[in-house]
Amino acid sequence: MQEVRTLYWVGGTEGRLRLIDQTRLPGELVELECRNAETVWEAIRALRVRGAPAIGIAAAYGICLGLQTVAGQDAAAFHARLQEVADYLAESRPTAVNLFWAIRRMTRRARDLRDAGASPIETHQALLAEAQAIEAEDRRMCRAIGRHGAELLPDGAGVLTHCNAGGLATADYGTALAVVYAAVELGKRVHVFVDETRPLLQGARLTAWELRRREIPCTLICDSMAAMVMKQGKVQAVVTGADRIARNGDAANKIGTYGVALAAAAHRIPFYVAAPSSTFDLSLDSGEEIPIELRAAGEVTHCHGRPVAPEGIDVYNPAFDVTPAGLIAALVCERGVLRPVCEARIAEVLETSATS
Amino acid sequence: MQEVRTLYWVGGTEGRLRLIDQTRLPGELVELECRNAETVWEAIRALRVRGAPAIGIAAAYGICLGLQTVAGQDAAAFHARLQEVADYLAESRPTAVNLFWAIRRMTRRARDLRDAGASPIETHQALLAEAQAIEAEDRRMCRAIGRHGAELLPDGAGVLTHCNAGGLATADYGTALAVVYAAVELGKRVHVFVDETRPLLQGARLTAWELRRREIPCTLICDSMAAMVMKQGKVQAVVTGADRIARNGDAANKIGTYGVALAAAAHRIPFYVAAPSSTFDLSLDSGEEIPIELRAAGEVTHCHGRPVAPEGIDVYNPAFDVTPAGLIAALVCERGVLRPVCEARIAEVLETSATS
Repeated sequence: MQEVRTLYWVGGTEGRLRLIDQTRLPGELVELECRNAETVWEAIRALRVRGAPAIGIAAAYGICLGLQTVAGQDAAAFHARLQEVADYLAESRPTAVNLFWAIRRMTRRARDLRDAGASPIETHQALLAEAQAIEAEDRRMCRAIGRHGAELLPDGAGVLTHCNAGGLATADYGTALAVVYAAVELGKRVHVFVDETRPLLQGARLTAWELRRREIPCTLICDSMAAMVMKQGKVQAVVTGADRIARNGDAANKIGTYGVALAAAAHRIPFYVAAPSSTFDLSLDSGEEIPIELRAAGEVTHCHGRPVAPEGIDVYNPAFDVTPAGLIAALVCERGVLRPVCEARIAEVLETSATS
Repeated sequence: MQEVRTLYWVGGTEGRLRLIDQTRLPGELVELECRNAETVWEAIRALRVRGAPAIGIAAAYGICLGLQTVAGQDAAAFHARLQEVADYLAESRPTAVNLFWAIRRMTRRARDLRDAGASPIETHQALLAEAQAIEAEDRRMCRAIGRHGAELLPDGAGVLTHCNAGGLATADYGTALAVVYAAVELGKRVHVFVDETRPLLQGARLTAWELRRREIPCTLICDSMAAMVMKQGKVQAVVTGADRIARNGDAANKIGTYGVALAAAAHRIPFYVAAPSSTFDLSLDSGEEIPIELRAAGEVTHCHGRPVAPEGIDVYNPAFDVTPAGLIAALVCERGVLRPVCEARIAEVLETSATS
């Protein structure tokens, strides 16, 4: 299997970020080169890079890019620009908390370095190392998620997933799909039912593409077919990713996840959410506090630039919904399998160490 | 509002069937003229005319067209051809029972006429009158369904519907949408949430188009958004049509309906099915016996002729699913509101008179 890198840095502090333009998959595998923070912002907003962990990594590198013009200036100018770039990138998308987590980690690191008397050039170098550490940690976390989650899948399982929480949503290997990949590596037979995931078809375009590259048996369905496939007994587990998980375990994920979780509950099929600890937002009591991104009507009304609905029709297009903790059989993060899904168990696992 | 006729006959026994080519909506309002049974078969198979009641009417007229070449021949040739055309049209689509109901009604009428000594020319004339009666009855039934169903909707209701069970699915006025239209005519305020209805987008293309023409407030959503909209309290009732209803009340309808019914149940929102009595198939014990049409993968993998999924991906594309009676708050047919939805109540209402 040809190596595919979702996003990676090339060169030193004056280098650049390269990422797969996911809007062009599955038709074309094309890399986009980002040479400034603006290109990164646009890539995140337009979903060229998407998936909560991947946009966190992209934002961290975006900060490095945004500082290239001021690395030779004085500390005041450097840190003012840092704050400007951080605020700017934080505006790219509102729901995935990994974005804010990565930006905060980068700005905190810069502050610590300034307090320790580091020069702008030294700080810029250290921030690139920090972004690379975030990326490397993500790779390790995805493997650990896979290892923990694989035990949840019985041999011969039909696994339904929604959207793309695979290698394309992370630095590598994925979260929900990591569970599948690791189970297959253990020798388990798995068949994946792939929700196409309207409106932007990340399931049809990205998950189906990833699974085929890894030669994992899969069947593409429309989102509306998930309940019927479950009723037919073809699905033994549902695994999705998450974009933000509140302290009580409520999980925001791609629109449609909640409906899948309701259908799974009706058929007594376990519904699992796989995500790194950076996806948890312990500042939020529940999913009701998670901001939900509303996107343009055109994503629903047009396909390949041509209308599929009457002109001027009113459209509601939330990019995410929230699945309540009560519908989630377990959360799988790099530290293990969290169940039952409740505040006490989450606090126990996540607050024992400050970083992964 | 400009008059739109879903399908209608022009001329006498040597006339033709005209119908709106619904595959070209909402972009173009174009009529297709059918001059033989083959064109009708293709129009049904390709969903140029769709909706259980409308395909029943189309098939009845299709029989008249198929007999035009033999109306001057002897009775044996005429009735052999009739059987041939009936069998042929019955192969066009497998799930909607109205198709078989209409074909059976036409062939039974022809047999009665033959037994009474009618000539082929007389029989052909009587069959055209029978097809026109089926169409006229459908118009009356839709109005009656609307009248009965309107009482189920509270003033100010948000109503969610799936696929198109409107005027375009019938001779006129619709079944599920008839309930909305009649409620609005009574002065109730209604806002309709329109599931786009993948893969063929009958909701986005047809229901949204119909509702806008009638100036009924509506919002288009992806199928995967229905559960979230329900959770937000925006929906007070779900109303869909049906393609076949078994004796116990299990109802086959457009794929995705079952998932909508599960979501409605989880939010304690009443889920109603509106359909004429010709949609009931009392020969079937339950929905498990309803044949489900599987359609081509390309409906899912392509949009406007361009791929949205990897080439060669395995696809499961059932056109219908079955909603169990236990999830249906009431069935609305032209004879009234049937509830609870159970075999005894259905038998009581449907077996009291042989025809409507």
